[in-house]
Amino acid sequence: MAKIGFDIGGTNIAAGLVSDEGVLVKKGSLPFPQDKDFEKVMATCEQLVAALEEGETEPVRSIGVAVPGSIDATASIVLNAFNLGFSNTPLKAALEERLQKPVYLINDADAAVLAEHRIGSLRGCTNAFMITIGTGLGGGFIFNGSLYRGGRGNGTEPGHLILVNGGRHCSCGNDGCAEAYCAASRLVQDGRTYGWSNAKMVIDAAKAGDPFATAIVNAFIDDIGSYLASVINLLDPERIAVGGGVSAAGEFLMRPLRENVQRKSFFTDPTEIVVATAGNDAGIYGAAFIAE
Amino acid sequence: MAKIGFDIGGTNIAAGLVSDEGVLVKKGSLPFPQDKDFEKVMATCEQLVAALEEGETEPVRSIGVAVPGSIDATASIVLNAFNLGFSNTPLKAALEERLQKPVYLINDADAAVLAEHRIGSLRGCTNAFMITIGTGLGGGFIFNGSLYRGGRGNGTEPGHLILVNGGRHCSCGNDGCAEAYCAASRLVQDGRTYGWSNAKMVIDAAKAGDPFATAIVNAFIDDIGSYLASVINLLDPERIAVGGGVSAAGEFLMRPLRENVQRKSFFTDPTEIVVATAGNDAGIYGAAFIAE
Repeated sequence: MAKIGFDIGGTNIAAGLVSDEGVLVKKGSLPFPQDKDFEKVMATCEQLVAALEEGETEPVRSIGVAVPGSIDATASIVLNAFNLGFSNTPLKAALEERLQKPVYLINDADAAVLAEHRIGSLRGCTNAFMITIGTGLGGGFIFNGSLYRGGRGNGTEPGHLILVNGGRHCSCGNDGCAEAYCAASRLVQDGRTYGWSNAKMVIDAAKAGDPFATAIVNAFIDDIGSYLASVINLLDPERIAVGGGVSAAGEFLMRPLRENVQRKSFFTDPTEIVVATAGNDAGIYGAAFIAE
Repeated sequence: MAKIGFDIGGTNIAAGLVSDEGVLVKKGSLPFPQDKDFEKVMATCEQLVAALEEGETEPVRSIGVAVPGSIDATASIVLNAFNLGFSNTPLKAALEERLQKPVYLINDADAAVLAEHRIGSLRGCTNAFMITIGTGLGGGFIFNGSLYRGGRGNGTEPGHLILVNGGRHCSCGNDGCAEAYCAASRLVQDGRTYGWSNAKMVIDAAKAGDPFATAIVNAFIDDIGSYLASVINLLDPERIAVGGGVSAAGEFLMRPLRENVQRKSFFTDPTEIVVATAGNDAGIYGAAFIAE
């Protein structure tokens, strides 16, 4: 029986029908209610399920939901999802009542890792790591063939390894987190002085040979390189996938990044570093895969 | 049947007879040959086995050996153990031929983690982390109830997480590794200006209220705090054990360290941080525990 995967974001709620074979059969998307009214969120989810079920002969067995926030250890309550206005929200129970199907919750970064492992660049890996370089720095890892959800069930926050103790201030309150150095927002911050207003502009300027942009991008690569070397020295993964908007820069970033990481890695055999391939629907897929 | 555990160090080779119940029945120690002659090392090991077996009615089943260096993925060859003069040394085969018993190799930091898990402060933990703060920074972790030996079998090098990217030079070649900030050698380095020649002198001066020593120790605690917060944010362990010479400072270090870590941890539930209890014989125990 097919499952539905939801990827709830602060702008849109996307949902898709995923077959038992792991194929995304169809998908839909509606705006996330601007006033963050919970009843409207529920109604939007219900609408999407109805649209996906229409014309299907096979019933939908269960629903997985990816949310950009932290989920409690029982996977029932969204502890905090700032962009959605969720705080200690019993999302599982609310959706199960509304949709009359079993509902499973997952953090969106975890969903991306799961999708990457099942259908993307981490297929077949037993121990692997993924970072998503977007506005923030997310990620997660596959351990013994399964998604690692934390030793106490808190999950993993790989953006909050401290990379430059006492350095740039991070939104989490610490100074020097990897997220303050290895995310797109760092390129924006460093590029502002030169009139570049987004990460792509900085990368494009570096590609065109601008010396200031090149210096910014080189420092960015050096920081990501140190970060990934740290992960390798601690976990020794078989392969690392790099996802998120910044990974669109492709080999322009990846080639020097691989060299940088290999030079800093404690182990002589290079860890494969590849661009993530699960794509924009990774959240939907990962959510559907967590549903039983 | 009992097993023998070896803890081979650059100064001494220690060995102990460990019963099936995990009790260290008796132990012995001989100097490590000063010229690092391999034949002499073998002879010393043989002498120790003979001494431990003497008067025992039950035969020794197998032998575990902890070495301060890296071991290949098949656990047969010591790739590099600088202090012992070992380089691509087929230690398992050599000892098996000499001692006529199955031999198992383990890195000494891993042996300490294993001992801590079986008989020390990490007993009963499913997911836990240990750091050993000595001249260097060692450690390892317990994952799903077992010692983690790396995703590709390379083991784990937790001293080489980069804590201050571009910072103090580390013996591994990188700049800014945790080992350059969180080991006893950092206290020696910082204390030298003030005439303190070892870590204990700096800590004792801080305990006595010396303002320079206090500043050094506070910075040291802040670095270890950031390091442990990074580990927590990535792995979410149930408990962390702090071992090694520096941990002898006890609550003088541990109390402010716990506060520092908790303040920087992403998760609200504090991870327990305790002093390691397996003691000086941890290497012998861990080696015996790895023997089958």
